[in-house]
Amino acid sequence: MKPANLLGSLPADLTHEVFQNIVRSPSVRIERIVSRGHASPEAGWYDQGENEWVMVVAGRASLEFEDGSSCELSAGDYVDIPAHVKHRVAWTDPDIPTVWLAVFYS
Amino acid sequence: MKPANLLGSLPADLTHEVFQNIVRSPSVRIERIVSRGHASPEAGWYDQGENEWVMVVAGRASLEFEDGSSCELSAGDYVDIPAHVKHRVAWTDPDIPTVWLAVFYS
Repeated sequence: MKPANLLGSLPADLTHEVFQNIVRSPSVRIERIVSRGHASPEAGWYDQGENEWVMVVAGRASLEFEDGSSCELSAGDYVDIPAHVKHRVAWTDPDIPTVWLAVFYS
Repeated sequence: MKPANLLGSLPADLTHEVFQNIVRSPSVRIERIVSRGHASPEAGWYDQGENEWVMVVAGRASLEFEDGSSCELSAGDYVDIPAHVKHRVAWTDPDIPTVWLAVFYS
């Protein structure tokens, strides 16, 4: 079994955020997201039917929630966002790639 | 929503490996495992009913599989181990804690 590296093979073109499935089963989806200076549009709230556990593996980011709260995330920081808790990416570091690991589950 | 850090609050006592649930739902379990020089017993194969996606977030480790193959893992390396593929931890770095992130899913 050959390992892959979550921080390896980063996309050369980060004009847009890059979403890649790592695992996809009927019950769970594990995704790598690579951002660089991206933020969700002001009105671009994620409103998901699944719970999302998400960790910043490298880089820095800020999440904002519909209740007005926000949180800063750097390497190793994670949050567990229940389904339908609206959130958006307020900021990601413009100078280095931010690598997210997201586990969507029910 | 306040983030926690996967590399924070490492157990002071690593006489034994430390397993901590991060998320537990009917469909998925996300677990942090902290090892320091631990290995599975020679006959201590894991034979699990769930698939396990596992990443080394910090440290270094080696996994061995029943077919005789093995793989070395360092920070960011991950493997996706199907249910009932027998495996064991052959080695973890004795000098620093190895922090694993494991997602068990069906």
